[in-house]
Amino acid sequence: MRFKLILAGLALALGAGLTLTAHSQMKPEVMVKQRQAAMTLQLKYLGPLFAMAQGKAPFNAETVARNAAYLDVLDRMAWDGFDPSTKDTTATTRALPVIWSEPAKFKEAQTHFQSAVSELVAASKSGDEAKMKAAIGAVGKSCGACHDHFREKR
Amino acid sequence: MRFKLILAGLALALGAGLTLTAHSQMKPEVMVKQRQAAMTLQLKYLGPLFAMAQGKAPFNAETVARNAAYLDVLDRMAWDGFDPSTKDTTATTRALPVIWSEPAKFKEAQTHFQSAVSELVAASKSGDEAKMKAAIGAVGKSCGACHDHFREKR
Repeated sequence: MRFKLILAGLALALGAGLTLTAHSQMKPEVMVKQRQAAMTLQLKYLGPLFAMAQGKAPFNAETVARNAAYLDVLDRMAWDGFDPSTKDTTATTRALPVIWSEPAKFKEAQTHFQSAVSELVAASKSGDEAKMKAAIGAVGKSCGACHDHFREKR
Repeated sequence: MRFKLILAGLALALGAGLTLTAHSQMKPEVMVKQRQAAMTLQLKYLGPLFAMAQGKAPFNAETVARNAAYLDVLDRMAWDGFDPSTKDTTATTRALPVIWSEPAKFKEAQTHFQSAVSELVAASKSGDEAKMKAAIGAVGKSCGACHDHFREKR
Protein backbone atom coordinates (compact mmCIF):
# COMPACT_ATOMS: atom_id res chain seq x y z
CA MET A 1 0.00 0.00 0.00
CA ARG A 2 1.15 3.45 -0.86
CA PHE A 3 1.13 4.85 2.67
CA LYS A 4 3.51 2.11 3.78
CA LEU A 5 6.06 3.45 1.33
CA ILE A 6 5.45 6.95 2.63
CA LEU A 7 5.91 5.77 6.19
CA ALA A 8 9.05 3.86 5.36
CA GLY A 9 10.45 6.97 3.70
CA LEU A 10 9.35 9.10 6.59
CA ALA A 11 11.01 6.87 9.15
CA LEU A 12 14.26 7.46 7.30
CA ALA A 13 13.56 11.17 6.83
CA LEU A 14 12.75 11.78 10.47
CA GLY A 15 16.03 10.20 11.38
CA ALA A 16 17.51 10.41 14.86
CA GLY A 17 15.22 9.76 17.75
CA LEU A 18 12.64 7.68 15.93
CA THR A 19 12.22 4.41 17.70
CA LEU A 20 9.60 2.10 16.38
CA THR A 21 10.06 -0.50 19.09
CA ALA A 22 8.04 -0.80 22.27
CA HIS A 23 8.66 1.65 25.07
CA SER A 24 10.62 -0.81 27.19
CA GLN A 25 13.11 -1.27 24.36
CA MET A 26 13.52 2.43 23.73
CA LYS A 27 16.98 3.88 24.14
CA PRO A 28 17.47 5.56 27.54
CA GLU A 29 18.91 8.65 25.80
CA VAL A 30 15.73 9.03 23.74
CA MET A 31 13.58 8.77 26.86
CA VAL A 32 15.68 11.42 28.63
CA LYS A 33 15.35 13.71 25.60
CA GLN A 34 11.58 13.20 25.50
CA ARG A 35 11.00 13.83 29.21
CA GLN A 36 13.18 16.96 29.03
CA ALA A 37 11.13 18.11 26.03
CA ALA A 38 7.97 17.81 28.14
CA MET A 39 9.59 19.89 30.90
CA THR A 40 10.73 22.50 28.34
CA LEU A 41 7.19 22.89 27.00
CA GLN A 42 5.65 22.99 30.48
CA LEU A 43 7.95 25.89 31.26
CA LYS A 44 7.15 27.55 27.93
CA TYR A 45 3.50 27.75 28.91
CA LEU A 46 4.01 28.33 32.64
CA GLY A 47 6.62 31.10 32.33
CA PRO A 48 4.19 33.76 31.07
CA LEU A 49 1.66 32.79 33.76
CA PHE A 50 4.27 33.16 36.51
CA ALA A 51 5.08 36.60 35.08
CA MET A 52 1.40 37.57 35.29
CA ALA A 53 1.00 36.22 38.82
CA GLN A 54 4.07 38.19 39.87
CA GLY A 55 2.79 41.37 38.23
CA LYS A 56 5.71 41.39 35.80
CA ALA A 57 3.43 41.06 32.78
CA PRO A 58 -0.10 42.35 32.16
CA PHE A 59 -2.80 39.88 33.18
CA ASN A 60 -4.44 38.18 30.21
CA ALA A 61 -7.25 35.74 30.98
CA GLU A 62 -7.20 34.29 27.45
CA THR A 63 -3.54 33.37 27.73
CA VAL A 64 -4.18 31.81 31.13
CA ALA A 65 -7.01 29.70 29.69
CA ARG A 66 -5.05 28.62 26.62
CA ASN A 67 -1.88 27.78 28.53
CA ALA A 68 -3.81 25.97 31.27
CA ALA A 69 -5.46 23.80 28.60
CA TYR A 70 -2.07 23.03 27.03
CA LEU A 71 -0.58 22.20 30.44
CA ASP A 72 -3.51 19.90 31.16
CA VAL A 73 -2.16 17.67 28.36
CA LEU A 74 1.57 18.32 28.78
CA ASP A 75 1.43 17.30 32.46
CA ARG A 76 0.93 13.66 31.38
CA MET A 77 3.93 13.45 29.06
CA ALA A 78 7.12 13.45 31.13
CA TRP A 79 6.61 10.61 33.57
CA ASP A 80 7.02 7.45 31.50
CA GLY A 81 10.40 8.88 30.51
CA PHE A 82 11.67 8.30 34.04
CA ASP A 83 12.14 4.63 33.25
CA PRO A 84 14.60 2.72 35.47
CA SER A 85 16.68 2.07 32.34
CA THR A 86 17.54 5.78 32.27
CA LYS A 87 19.18 5.63 35.71
CA ASP A 88 22.66 5.18 34.30
CA THR A 89 22.18 7.12 31.08
CA THR A 90 25.10 8.98 29.54
CA ALA A 91 22.71 11.84 28.67
CA THR A 92 22.99 15.05 30.67
CA THR A 93 20.27 15.01 33.29
CA ARG A 94 19.62 16.50 36.71
CA ALA A 95 17.31 13.63 37.68
CA LEU A 96 18.35 12.29 41.09
CA PRO A 97 18.51 8.55 41.99
CA VAL A 98 15.86 9.21 44.66
CA ILE A 99 13.33 9.13 41.77
CA TRP A 100 13.81 5.36 41.61
CA SER A 101 14.37 4.70 45.31
CA GLU A 102 11.21 6.59 46.31
CA PRO A 103 8.78 5.80 43.48
CA ALA A 104 5.63 6.33 45.57
CA LYS A 105 6.77 9.78 46.63
CA PHE A 106 7.71 10.64 43.04
CA LYS A 107 4.32 9.47 41.81
CA GLU A 108 2.65 11.54 44.52
CA ALA A 109 4.55 14.64 43.36
CA GLN A 110 3.31 14.05 39.79
CA THR A 111 -0.26 13.66 40.98
CA HIS A 112 0.05 16.81 43.07
CA PHE A 113 1.25 18.76 40.03
CA GLN A 114 -1.52 17.36 37.83
CA SER A 115 -4.14 18.26 40.44
CA ALA A 116 -2.76 21.80 40.65
CA VAL A 117 -3.01 22.08 36.85
CA SER A 118 -6.61 20.81 36.96
CA GLU A 119 -7.40 23.49 39.55
CA LEU A 120 -5.80 26.07 37.26
CA VAL A 121 -7.96 24.90 34.35
CA ALA A 122 -11.05 25.30 36.58
CA ALA A 123 -9.90 28.71 37.81
CA SER A 124 -9.22 29.85 34.24
CA LYS A 125 -12.92 29.37 33.51
CA SER A 126 -14.07 31.33 36.56
CA GLY A 127 -13.32 34.83 35.27
CA ASP A 128 -11.81 35.60 38.69
CA GLU A 129 -8.31 37.08 38.32
CA ALA A 130 -7.29 36.59 41.97
CA LYS A 131 -8.41 32.96 41.83
CA MET A 132 -6.39 32.38 38.63
CA LYS A 133 -3.29 33.98 40.13
CA ALA A 134 -3.59 31.87 43.27
CA ALA A 135 -3.97 28.74 41.10
CA ILE A 136 -0.85 29.69 39.12
CA GLY A 137 0.99 30.05 42.43
CA ALA A 138 -0.15 26.59 43.50
CA VAL A 139 1.09 25.06 40.23
CA GLY A 140 4.44 26.79 40.76
CA LYS A 141 4.63 25.46 44.28
CA SER A 142 4.02 21.91 43.06
CA CYS A 143 6.82 22.25 40.46
CA GLY A 144 9.19 23.55 43.12
CA ALA A 145 8.31 20.86 45.65
CA CYS A 146 9.15 18.10 43.15
CA HIS A 147 12.31 19.82 41.91
CA ASP A 148 13.52 20.37 45.47
CA HIS A 149 13.51 16.68 46.21
CA PHE A 150 14.04 14.94 42.86
CA ARG A 151 16.24 17.28 40.84
CA GLU A 152 19.90 18.09 41.28
CA LYS A 153 20.55 21.63 42.46
CA ARG A 154 22.69 23.87 40.32
CA MET B 1 1.25 37.71 49.22
CA ARG B 2 2.69 34.32 49.96
CA PHE B 3 2.45 32.91 46.46
CA LYS B 4 4.57 35.78 45.14
CA LEU B 5 7.39 34.58 47.36
CA ILE B 6 6.84 31.05 46.10
CA LEU B 7 6.94 32.24 42.51
CA ALA B 8 10.05 34.32 43.04
CA GLY B 9 11.74 31.29 44.57
CA LEU B 10 10.50 29.09 41.80
CA ALA B 11 11.80 31.41 39.09
CA LEU B 12 15.24 30.98 40.63
CA ALA B 13 14.76 27.25 41.14
CA LEU B 14 13.65 26.59 37.58
CA GLY B 15 16.76 28.35 36.36
CA ALA B 16 17.88 28.17 32.74
CA GLY B 17 15.29 28.68 30.08
CA LEU B 18 12.79 30.63 32.13
CA THR B 19 12.05 33.88 30.40
CA LEU B 20 9.45 36.06 31.97
CA THR B 21 9.50 38.67 29.24
CA ALA B 22 7.16 38.88 26.29
CA HIS B 23 7.62 36.44 23.45
CA SER B 24 9.26 38.97 21.13
CA GLN B 25 11.97 39.58 23.71
CA MET B 26 12.63 35.92 24.27
CA LYS B 27 16.11 34.65 23.53
CA PRO B 28 16.36 32.96 20.10
CA GLU B 29 18.13 29.98 21.67
CA VAL B 30 15.19 29.43 24.03
CA MET B 31 12.73 29.55 21.14
CA VAL B 32 14.79 27.03 19.17
CA LYS B 33 14.89 24.73 22.21
CA GLN B 34 11.12 25.03 22.67
CA ARG B 35 10.22 24.36 19.04
CA GLN B 36 12.56 21.35 18.99
CA ALA B 37 10.88 20.10 22.18
CA ALA B 38 7.52 20.24 20.39
CA MET B 39 8.97 18.23 17.47
CA THR B 40 10.49 15.70 19.90
CA LEU B 41 7.13 15.11 21.58
CA GLN B 42 5.26 14.94 18.27
CA LEU B 43 7.63 12.16 17.27
CA LYS B 44 7.26 10.46 20.66
CA TYR B 45 3.53 10.07 20.03
CA LEU B 46 3.71 9.52 16.27
CA GLY B 47 6.47 6.89 16.31
CA PRO B 48 4.33 4.10 17.80
CA LEU B 49 1.50 4.92 15.37
CA PHE B 50 3.86 4.71 12.38
CA ALA B 51 4.98 1.31 13.71
CA MET B 52 1.34 0.15 13.85
CA ALA B 53 0.54 1.46 10.38
CA GLN B 54 3.60 -0.34 9.04
CA GLY B 55 2.66 -3.57 10.77
CA LYS B 56 5.79 -3.44 12.91
CA ALA B 57 3.80 -3.23 16.13
CA PRO B 58 0.42 -4.72 17.10
CA PHE B 59 -2.49 -2.39 16.36
CA ASN B 60 -3.92 -0.79 19.48
CA ALA B 61 -6.90 1.51 19.00
CA GLU B 62 -6.60 2.96 22.51
CA THR B 63 -3.02 4.08 21.88
CA VAL B 64 -4.08 5.60 18.57
CA ALA B 65 -6.87 7.56 20.29
CA ARG B 66 -4.67 8.74 23.14
CA ASN B 67 -1.76 9.75 20.93
CA ALA B 68 -4.04 11.45 18.42
CA ALA B 69 -5.55 13.53 21.23
CA TYR B 70 -2.06 14.49 22.46
CA LEU B 71 -0.97 15.38 18.92
CA ASP B 72 -4.07 17.53 18.51
CA VAL B 73 -2.58 19.84 21.18
CA LEU B 74 1.12 19.38 20.38
CA ASP B 75 0.55 20.39 16.74
CA ARG B 76 -0.01 24.00 17.87
CA MET B 77 3.19 24.38 19.89
CA ALA B 78 6.15 24.54 17.52
CA TRP B 79 5.24 27.35 15.14
CA ASP B 80 5.70 30.53 17.17
CA GLY B 81 9.22 29.28 17.82
CA PHE B 82 10.11 29.92 14.18
CA ASP B 83 10.47 33.61 14.93
CA PRO B 84 12.59 35.65 12.48
CA SER B 85 14.92 36.42 15.41
CA THR B 86 15.97 32.76 15.38
CA LYS B 87 17.27 32.99 11.79
CA ASP B 88 20.84 33.63 12.86
CA THR B 89 20.78 31.66 16.09
CA THR B 90 23.92 29.97 17.35
CA ALA B 91 21.79 26.99 18.43
CA THR B 92 22.05 23.79 16.42
CA THR B 93 19.09 23.67 14.06
CA ARG B 94 18.19 22.15 10.72
CA ALA B 95 15.64 24.89 9.98
CA LEU B 96 16.26 26.29 6.49
CA PRO B 97 16.13 30.01 5.59
CA VAL B 98 13.28 29.21 3.20
CA ILE B 99 11.04 29.16 6.32
CA TRP B 100 11.33 32.95 6.45
CA SER B 101 11.48 33.64 2.71
CA GLU B 102 8.33 31.57 2.01
CA PRO B 103 6.16 32.24 5.09
CA ALA B 104 2.86 31.55 3.31
CA LYS B 105 4.07 28.15 2.13
CA PHE B 106 5.41 27.35 5.62
CA LYS B 107 2.11 28.34 7.19
CA GLU B 108 0.29 26.18 4.63
CA ALA B 109 2.45 23.19 5.59
CA GLN B 110 1.55 23.73 9.27
CA THR B 111 -2.15 23.91 8.45
CA HIS B 112 -1.88 20.79 6.32
CA PHE B 113 -0.27 18.90 9.22
CA GLN B 114 -2.89 20.15 11.68
CA SER B 115 -5.70 19.10 9.34
CA ALA B 116 -4.16 15.66 8.98
CA VAL B 117 -4.01 15.36 12.78
CA SER B 118 -7.67 16.43 13.04
CA GLU B 119 -8.56 13.71 10.52
CA LEU B 120 -6.61 11.24 12.63
CA VAL B 121 -8.53 12.28 15.74
CA ALA B 122 -11.81 11.73 13.85
CA ALA B 123 -10.59 8.38 12.48
CA SER B 124 -9.50 7.28 15.97
CA LYS B 125 -13.13 7.56 17.08
CA SER B 126 -14.47 5.53 14.14
CA GLY B 127 -13.41 2.10 15.34
CA ASP B 128 -12.21 1.41 11.78
CA GLU B 129 -8.64 0.11 11.80
CA ALA B 130 -8.00 0.65 8.07
CA LYS B 131 -9.27 4.21 8.34
CA MET B 132 -6.99 4.90 11.31
CA LYS B 133 -3.98 3.47 9.51
CA ALA B 134 -4.70 5.55 6.41
CA ALA B 135 -5.03 8.66 8.62
CA ILE B 136 -1.69 7.87 10.28
CA GLY B 137 -0.16 7.61 6.81
CA ALA B 138 -1.58 11.01 5.88
CA VAL B 139 -0.10 12.60 9.00
CA GLY B 140 3.27 11.05 8.15
CA LYS B 141 3.04 12.38 4.62
CA SER B 142 2.36 15.91 5.91
CA CYS B 143 5.42 15.70 8.22
CA GLY B 144 7.57 14.53 5.35
CA ALA B 145 6.32 17.18 2.90
CA CYS B 146 7.24 19.97 5.32
CA HIS B 147 10.59 18.44 6.24
CA ASP B 148 11.48 17.95 2.57
CA HIS B 149 11.20 21.63 1.86
CA PHE B 150 11.95 23.41 5.13
CA ARG B 151 14.46 21.20 6.93
CA GLU B 152 18.10 20.59 6.13
CA LYS B 153 18.82 17.06 4.90
CA ARG B 154 21.27 14.97 6.83
